[in-house]
Amino acid sequence: MTEKPKVLNLGPVRYASDAWKKLEEIADVVYTDATNRDEFIQELKSGKFDGVVAIAKTAASTRITGRLDAELIQYLPKSLRSVSNNGAGYDTIDAVPLGERRIQLSNVPRIVDAATADTHVFLLLSAIRNFQWGHDLMLKGQWVPGNKAAGAPDGHDPAGKVVGIYGMGGIGRAIRDRLKPFGFKKITYYNRKRLDPDLEDGAEYVDLDTLLRESDIISVNIPLNKHTRHALNKETIAKTKKGVVIVNTARGAIIDEEALFEALKSGHIGAVGSDVFEFEPKVSQELLELPNLVSLPHMGTHTYETSLHMEEHVVDNIRNVLEKGKVLSLVPEHVDLEFDTTPIIK
Amino acid sequence: MTEKPKVLNLGPVRYASDAWKKLEEIADVVYTDATNRDEFIQELKSGKFDGVVAIAKTAASTRITGRLDAELIQYLPKSLRSVSNNGAGYDTIDAVPLGERRIQLSNVPRIVDAATADTHVFLLLSAIRNFQWGHDLMLKGQWVPGNKAAGAPDGHDPAGKVVGIYGMGGIGRAIRDRLKPFGFKKITYYNRKRLDPDLEDGAEYVDLDTLLRESDIISVNIPLNKHTRHALNKETIAKTKKGVVIVNTARGAIIDEEALFEALKSGHIGAVGSDVFEFEPKVSQELLELPNLVSLPHMGTHTYETSLHMEEHVVDNIRNVLEKGKVLSLVPEHVDLEFDTTPIIK
Repeated sequence: MTEKPKVLNLGPVRYASDAWKKLEEIADVVYTDATNRDEFIQELKSGKFDGVVAIAKTAASTRITGRLDAELIQYLPKSLRSVSNNGAGYDTIDAVPLGERRIQLSNVPRIVDAATADTHVFLLLSAIRNFQWGHDLMLKGQWVPGNKAAGAPDGHDPAGKVVGIYGMGGIGRAIRDRLKPFGFKKITYYNRKRLDPDLEDGAEYVDLDTLLRESDIISVNIPLNKHTRHALNKETIAKTKKGVVIVNTARGAIIDEEALFEALKSGHIGAVGSDVFEFEPKVSQELLELPNLVSLPHMGTHTYETSLHMEEHVVDNIRNVLEKGKVLSLVPEHVDLEFDTTPIIK
Repeated sequence: MTEKPKVLNLGPVRYASDAWKKLEEIADVVYTDATNRDEFIQELKSGKFDGVVAIAKTAASTRITGRLDAELIQYLPKSLRSVSNNGAGYDTIDAVPLGERRIQLSNVPRIVDAATADTHVFLLLSAIRNFQWGHDLMLKGQWVPGNKAAGAPDGHDPAGKVVGIYGMGGIGRAIRDRLKPFGFKKITYYNRKRLDPDLEDGAEYVDLDTLLRESDIISVNIPLNKHTRHALNKETIAKTKKGVVIVNTARGAIIDEEALFEALKSGHIGAVGSDVFEFEPKVSQELLELPNLVSLPHMGTHTYETSLHMEEHVVDNIRNVLEKGKVLSLVPEHVDLEFDTTPIIK
């Protein structure tokens, strides 16, 4: 009997325990005992994970291992063929040094699109209508006779407003689809590459400057990386319309949170809907308590169904490496690289 | 010079002062000094409003006059031809005794549909996704490392879920249109009269019992009247699926709030999204603080644009009575009655 290939599951598994059990039929799944980055590096150095061919990574495990950066990557076992991240965003993993070592990096695209877009629409509606503001005032006992909407100011209707979608990948397109029936005046988008006309489906391509200048609502859907960190900062925010609404379900650090705070307080930004924060879960209480800051604690994919499908997709990526030598959803930074794609299980 | 016809504006006018100023070119607009119902009845009895041909009524003015019921209606001036309500719902006005006196009652339909449907979608998303729950926990400082979504439980995706729209008028149809791209399994509806197939537009007609039994989400959009008061009560709620989500942007008293509270606490109802409450603005703090009760302080039409258009429509109704003898949007209870429709301004 040949030995099964080793898979390191950095866990935790919350939903897809059935899929992991099934994977155990063809793989030897091992775990870390580390409680912090130093201990994890010690485990790697000790040879404990020698022979591991695939790693499953979650956002929660980053709290133990820290960023999967060049420092950590140098200690990864020579046998390693792939890292599979449970999430669309992989800003806690450095794709370039992984690629240099010819370790495939996969994420979970598409599966997250619907739930993230649903969250985005929720935040957008709350921001333009002052719904959270009214709810919070109501909870504080401000809904008394004569105090309409508990004192929350009038919101605005979509009619006549321009939505600018900044980043038109799967999530941006899912947002466009959901927003169409609300009757906005126009939906525009900016993307590094203009989409094929049949994928644009009613959204009008504009350059980034036009999007910043002409949008009543800016919908942020770009990945976080060194090029996009603080894409919205003091200078770019200054280009936006007075009273602009910004909605972000991507990553907090795409926006300079200090500049956002100042622009919200000054009234240049009318309202913000944010599922993500630059230093989350740490958020300044002063920012949180601005009534025109609509906030969620990173709930973009926080549903039973989407979480299950994401975890299952991580297993599918690993299974594919084992059986076919390739992950299913290679990240864009890796698509032009050549990897060893000989199947691990023959 | 002939005298201008008198119009009683029970006010307040918040947005459409231009439209009212223009109306003053053809009408003598008068106001009440009453601060309560007794004083208003005294004014009516004193003859102060003799000659008034049209009344403009708002929700806010109900706090002064009380219900426009048979008692009050007997004192209305003999000259009165119409009452124009600023709102789609007119449950604080008794249409039947007004009709018996051949006073036309108008409301503001259609104009409210979009803003109300937007509110409905917001509440629905919050209820199925536990968004308000997460936000409230975040504000209380519960978003700390390791506490995913600040401790809010996993929500659910639309995929696989059945939405049952209870009441398929303009608002119900606007909700259907907005929900379509979210990927629900099925959208069904119940309405007193089945819609023409071309108005159904993808929604499947079912009887009320089926809607109650088979819906994962029940969307309430029926007017409040003596037939619909407590349409959802202990018995009808017992027919619904365990874990059902109920969203109400119509009127609080359509649901027996005590029965709703009990079913939320017992877990039979999974979550409720409510813009309206049975005894609003009075709401039990115990109900409000249930984490699965998503609440807004009656913000369905609380936008600058919709509020302006509603107030303007009240003026349009009055202008039409003056110039053409008929309000524009007669309520359904009055459509089969014969009114004096001779123009007041010749």
